[in-house]
Amino acid sequence: MTDDPAAEARHAEKMQRIQAARRDMMAGKTGEKGLLIVHTGPGKGKSTAAFGMAVRAMGHGMKVGIVQFVKGAMTTGERAIFDAFPDLVSFCPMGEGFTWDTQDRARDIAVARTAWDEVRRMIADPAIAMVIADELNIVLRYGYLPVEEVVAAVMDRAPMKHVVVTGRNAPQPLIDAADLVTEMTQVKHPFRGGIKAQAGIEF
Amino acid sequence: MTDDPAAEARHAEKMQRIQAARRDMMAGKTGEKGLLIVHTGPGKGKSTAAFGMAVRAMGHGMKVGIVQFVKGAMTTGERAIFDAFPDLVSFCPMGEGFTWDTQDRARDIAVARTAWDEVRRMIADPAIAMVIADELNIVLRYGYLPVEEVVAAVMDRAPMKHVVVTGRNAPQPLIDAADLVTEMTQVKHPFRGGIKAQAGIEF
Repeated sequence: MTDDPAAEARHAEKMQRIQAARRDMMAGKTGEKGLLIVHTGPGKGKSTAAFGMAVRAMGHGMKVGIVQFVKGAMTTGERAIFDAFPDLVSFCPMGEGFTWDTQDRARDIAVARTAWDEVRRMIADPAIAMVIADELNIVLRYGYLPVEEVVAAVMDRAPMKHVVVTGRNAPQPLIDAADLVTEMTQVKHPFRGGIKAQAGIEF
Repeated sequence: MTDDPAAEARHAEKMQRIQAARRDMMAGKTGEKGLLIVHTGPGKGKSTAAFGMAVRAMGHGMKVGIVQFVKGAMTTGERAIFDAFPDLVSFCPMGEGFTWDTQDRARDIAVARTAWDEVRRMIADPAIAMVIADELNIVLRYGYLPVEEVVAAVMDRAPMKHVVVTGRNAPQPLIDAADLVTEMTQVKHPFRGGIKAQAGIEF
């Protein structure tokens, strides 16, 4: 877009400075550890990004365990792909639906407990490199599981185990314990324009 | 967690009200259209969520085209999984690296143009249901492509074609044109704690 040699030179010089600064920054990053990752906030992409991380890990031959605390119809797409890699991913849709659909608090609590037991089993399994507790935050928000118990169990994992927790309203003790927290914020949403949930987008 | 029948009943009643409100809300959502989706913001998960959407769409047998405007080493994980579905996904890593690494503005512009031509080809291809322009926002930010040209081409797509654009600093005209915009905000990042990029997490 420019044929100005002086501008090109200034650009190259600026980029050299950025590159040097990045190299300095990255040189100090030498540690490895299993991360506790939280995707929260009211926006979209929390579970989708977690499933994307699952794909990334699977591509490295790492085994991934996924427990869904809230079962919707919203996972048929990923499910079909994950099913092609049975040795790399265990997918457990434990929840029975959104809590406003079940309307049975005692049953919701029992289901949350069963799902949580599965997460703990996966965290304890040395063959599983990454455990995704999808929508666990919703269950914590409703008080169906004690936050302290969940945080303690996650913090007690093996050093290289990655744990990913999704759902809006992540409790503060979980955020405090996490290594990486991303908040997804909704800037614009098509439901507002009368568009329904569509295959490949929402499910 | 409670044996109080009155509390159980209040919970069930509250959930019935939430369910009814949700049904009312969703009943008005009957439209279908190809969406322009933008993942922006300084946080992680922008590309990862886009690749997660690719997996979701592929699971429905929808074909996905992905063009990466900035090639890093950061895609080996997804790549290995995508390569197992050559009929469902075309993956084009067109960029040559971060612009602070190439230090050659003229070449960066030429590469951006080539990548953009590929996006336009995919948008025009009726067999492709979803086009992901990964890190296109970075290229727009640097002025390597005219924003107006990009927005016009994206808006001119077939009615059911989904386009996903990622990268921080999405330009306002693209946000204005989009159906769904999510901003990823960084709440906490492990690089600050001296942890390096790890397989299955960053790449």
